[in-house]
Amino acid sequence: MEHTVTFTTEDSKAVTVKVPTNTMLADAAHIAGIDIGQPCGGQGRCGRCAIQVTDGSVRRRSTLRLSPADLEQGYALACQTVIEGDVQIFVPPQEKIERRLTTDRVVAEVTVPADYEYLNDQTVRRVHLRLTPPTMEDQTDDWSRLQTALRLQTNINKLNISLPLLQTIGDVLREGEWNVTVVLEYPLQDLEAPTRLISLQPNLVDEYSPLWGIAVDIGTTTVTLWLVDLVTGQVRAQVAEYNGQIARGEDVISRIMFAGKNGGGKEMRQRVLDTINGLLERACKRVKAKPEEVFKATIAGNSTMIHLLLGIPASSIRLSPFITAVNHPPILSARDVGLNTHPEASVDCLPGVASYVGADITAGVLSSGVDTAEDVTLFIDVGTNGETVLGNRDWLVTCACSAGPAFEGAGVVNGMRATQGAIEEVWINGESFEPSIRVIGGGKPKGLCGSGLISLLSEAFLTGILDKAGNVNLTVNSSRVRAGTHGGEYVVAWGAETESGEDIVLTRVDVDNLLRAKAAIYAGFTVLADTVGVSLEDVSKVLVGGSFGKYINVEKAVQIGLLPDMEWSRFEFLGNTAVRGAYYTLLDWRKRERVTEIAKRMTYIELSADNNFYESFTSALFLPHTDINKFPRVAEALESK
Amino acid sequence: MEHTVTFTTEDSKAVTVKVPTNTMLADAAHIAGIDIGQPCGGQGRCGRCAIQVTDGSVRRRSTLRLSPADLEQGYALACQTVIEGDVQIFVPPQEKIERRLTTDRVVAEVTVPADYEYLNDQTVRRVHLRLTPPTMEDQTDDWSRLQTALRLQTNINKLNISLPLLQTIGDVLREGEWNVTVVLEYPLQDLEAPTRLISLQPNLVDEYSPLWGIAVDIGTTTVTLWLVDLVTGQVRAQVAEYNGQIARGEDVISRIMFAGKNGGGKEMRQRVLDTINGLLERACKRVKAKPEEVFKATIAGNSTMIHLLLGIPASSIRLSPFITAVNHPPILSARDVGLNTHPEASVDCLPGVASYVGADITAGVLSSGVDTAEDVTLFIDVGTNGETVLGNRDWLVTCACSAGPAFEGAGVVNGMRATQGAIEEVWINGESFEPSIRVIGGGKPKGLCGSGLISLLSEAFLTGILDKAGNVNLTVNSSRVRAGTHGGEYVVAWGAETESGEDIVLTRVDVDNLLRAKAAIYAGFTVLADTVGVSLEDVSKVLVGGSFGKYINVEKAVQIGLLPDMEWSRFEFLGNTAVRGAYYTLLDWRKRERVTEIAKRMTYIELSADNNFYESFTSALFLPHTDINKFPRVAEALESK
Repeated sequence: MEHTVTFTTEDSKAVTVKVPTNTMLADAAHIAGIDIGQPCGGQGRCGRCAIQVTDGSVRRRSTLRLSPADLEQGYALACQTVIEGDVQIFVPPQEKIERRLTTDRVVAEVTVPADYEYLNDQTVRRVHLRLTPPTMEDQTDDWSRLQTALRLQTNINKLNISLPLLQTIGDVLREGEWNVTVVLEYPLQDLEAPTRLISLQPNLVDEYSPLWGIAVDIGTTTVTLWLVDLVTGQVRAQVAEYNGQIARGEDVISRIMFAGKNGGGKEMRQRVLDTINGLLERACKRVKAKPEEVFKATIAGNSTMIHLLLGIPASSIRLSPFITAVNHPPILSARDVGLNTHPEASVDCLPGVASYVGADITAGVLSSGVDTAEDVTLFIDVGTNGETVLGNRDWLVTCACSAGPAFEGAGVVNGMRATQGAIEEVWINGESFEPSIRVIGGGKPKGLCGSGLISLLSEAFLTGILDKAGNVNLTVNSSRVRAGTHGGEYVVAWGAETESGEDIVLTRVDVDNLLRAKAAIYAGFTVLADTVGVSLEDVSKVLVGGSFGKYINVEKAVQIGLLPDMEWSRFEFLGNTAVRGAYYTLLDWRKRERVTEIAKRMTYIELSADNNFYESFTSALFLPHTDINKFPRVAEALESK
Repeated sequence: MEHTVTFTTEDSKAVTVKVPTNTMLADAAHIAGIDIGQPCGGQGRCGRCAIQVTDGSVRRRSTLRLSPADLEQGYALACQTVIEGDVQIFVPPQEKIERRLTTDRVVAEVTVPADYEYLNDQTVRRVHLRLTPPTMEDQTDDWSRLQTALRLQTNINKLNISLPLLQTIGDVLREGEWNVTVVLEYPLQDLEAPTRLISLQPNLVDEYSPLWGIAVDIGTTTVTLWLVDLVTGQVRAQVAEYNGQIARGEDVISRIMFAGKNGGGKEMRQRVLDTINGLLERACKRVKAKPEEVFKATIAGNSTMIHLLLGIPASSIRLSPFITAVNHPPILSARDVGLNTHPEASVDCLPGVASYVGADITAGVLSSGVDTAEDVTLFIDVGTNGETVLGNRDWLVTCACSAGPAFEGAGVVNGMRATQGAIEEVWINGESFEPSIRVIGGGKPKGLCGSGLISLLSEAFLTGILDKAGNVNLTVNSSRVRAGTHGGEYVVAWGAETESGEDIVLTRVDVDNLLRAKAAIYAGFTVLADTVGVSLEDVSKVLVGGSFGKYINVEKAVQIGLLPDMEWSRFEFLGNTAVRGAYYTLLDWRKRERVTEIAKRMTYIELSADNNFYESFTSALFLPHTDINKFPRVAEALESK
């Protein structure tokens, strides 16, 4: 028996074909010339081939990737659904499908906090001053004249000025004919403290034109910088780059050791300054601003990164009993720090907790809101140092484990940051072993970013290319699976298709790095939860931070055993929580105070002395884990293969 | 008739001679082989030949240089006393005579203020800290650990630290095995303000061993530095040197103009820094200290000097309406200023009043006590800028006049500072025109210092070598009076007797410079007194400041018309009042506050716009003045010639 199938696409194009009963919808679409993505090879795994049955009768063999709400709206997987009558099909645009998938977690967008009020919350502000010119009868000195004008116009009684600014005051006042624009830093957290003069310009600059600040996260692997207009609060540019220190060591320990050598500390400092100043330049170019027009910087980063940035020896961080020189540096000037912003710009390095739980985590807790959560929340920063925080508004515990940079695309042969050209998702056909990839920006692939690596690792495991222990199964019948220089490898993209012309591969060594990274993170949060006697079942939300680009496929992160196996709806992906926290504190002095409170409240649990951690780490060095019972959904998926 | 004359000297040696009646005592001494100084040539003018008649009968022809008390003790001038019977004569050592003369004013000695209490008055103090070492159970960061120890031991709650110090904290604490010595700057004037960490040393330095500070006066011509132990308050070294800026202009105006040229400001700054740092090195060597062990600097100086020191453009000081960029600079660090003390040393440039009344004068008022005087007091700073203050505890007015550097020995052919080898006093024999000189240190003369120049100018005038207008009388019958390249000149010392082998002379050009300097100063204080309606008769005390070495002959300063003609007992010579004021404020924060009060209280009177000043100046360009009635005592001395 034949049925009429009409496919309608978003652009209202309709194509009708006739097919026999029990024809797979995917095949009917193929006949109709409609391209429906099937990255998993028609195995019902990926959910990418979802279409909407608007009228008629179909039978769904599997609804693995569909929610009840999806079913109510008529969604069906084209690869798992057969035609049983005349049907009307709407083919949603592929992108819409991808974004709809419950397994994908979209990074929370950056919006200006609704309650941001420049004139109440911001410590750095621009003010016009009109001074009375001096005469023979009024020979008041320039500096007193400026202070008097400020006192009369703004009620500020104590004003600090640096010598370099004092050196310009006479010329600026005269050039501006006694009308000047000043940028001030208000001591909103301590009204007795003096206000500080940051800049003095010889004309009346529009008081509400953009006033630039930057929020920076110095990751061990990736440095992220947001350029913010402090007047509106808007993030006007977001840029990121590998930390230039990587050339001298991938993890904090090797960085500290290098910095301890003669001249090493100076080199480390210069390298990260070069990275930040490069990002500053790039971000400013985008909005046609100049670096020296940036008046405030708020910096998050782990304790080692902050020490190296400030040229503070970090060797005691590495040696028992693991002590930082400073968890909460004073506010400094850009001149002292070495940033190419305005030299008087205020540089605020946020407070950390301990040697291995730094300001990136306190900022992350702020931006993720763990410290105000009613229910127990787990916050996992999937970065080089794998910090984890567990708690709620009543208590906060934290630990760190050295995960390495694999999930940031470093230390992996074809790894890269989540930027233009990065493969961010991989599906492998279970029969042909051919991959489907999604590339950020859509062009030729250049390499694999963190989410791409997670996706690839999971797919290679589920399709049998890798075994539980991560060994490459060279008996797989595909030219993509081959023996490489460092053991077996899988070719994700042939040289002919790539930007560089070289094959993009996942090697056995890469797999080991990824396994160690995911095992460290998994061991970190599980041991932390055990230590405080919390079951992961009791965790109401898992907030995941990390530099993964725009999306992360939570299911795949669970399948490799990076994240705990729980309802996908409990996961939220927050992206770079550290720079987001730095951004919030850059805007609002109350949030800045909250970070200090968070740092005080957090209890640090040292795992390096904990045998349970090593056991847990070793058990987690498998896909997904030596104890498959901890991953029931993954077990199910493996069985259904 | 013959009489027996016995001369006894301090070493109890007795010499007896027989001489006829009416023999001059000086001649009898000559016969006895006793050397009695007669610098004025036996004219009874200098008083240097005073001896003591212990028994017997003499007749005194003149007692001009003897007080009633002197006469009661039997003093007589050997050149003015004839023998009328057997006499016993005691010949006091020459030095004792010199110091006894009522015309000489000895510089006030520097003693530690009686009420100085290190622990109450000093803002910079040394404290021992014993910290609890960190453990795995107490992983507090180094900086917090230090702050906690300080809070427990001293009640200090707010502590500031600079980045360079923060960079050393970890190493210092560990090197000292958690016992350290800190140097702190306490905000004694504002208890809400934070305490500042100046230094951190890895051992327990004796808390009461010397803690060094410096008081500095940056004069246009001379820079003076006192090295002070802040614990005891004692001045341990006093050094002075010409300001290295002299090579680029003798007065503030030419300095400002040079500084306004491309790179000129930088050069000026470096030159004065080199001078100060050189003095610092010299002073430290004397007490075997190191410059980097100096933790506090208090600096006085006129407004231009302070601007140039701090690299602040000074051009507006020179141009109407004569405005400084800053009268009261904030407290800075030695690192910012460029001093070679400890880089964190606190550098406090004292507050000034106006472009031409700077911190040297406010400091001078403090140290001279004009601001607390009951009676009207005149304070004259005989320096390059000739500042004058008139007032008492109720009111203070001040003015400045550009005197030039002549009285500091600069801008004069054979001028020099009042140091080893400087001729500090000159007497000229009224008949032979041969000079007697007193040289600082007693060796060969190198040149003439301020007091020597005053003395020489006065003697040359009184002996007729110079006329009222300062012209050299070439008809004088002496090879010492001769025509030089620049007009007439007088040879004070022949090359054979001098250190350099060159003649030391006073030229017509030198005389002009000295006349202009003394006329400016005289015009300054007289016009100031006129302006506020005070007669010089009503001035109870004249306090004279200046770099004149240890003594100044007030009579001679009056004879040339530099100081007003009044009872010599009303004069006090204070030496460098600016550095003394800086010293007092270096020790005691209450005195530091008093300087700020003085600066606020002083009313500046601008003379540059005052016609009276020019008239008065022109009238004073003569010896002693066009109107001799203003100088009755000088008129008397001229008549008695």
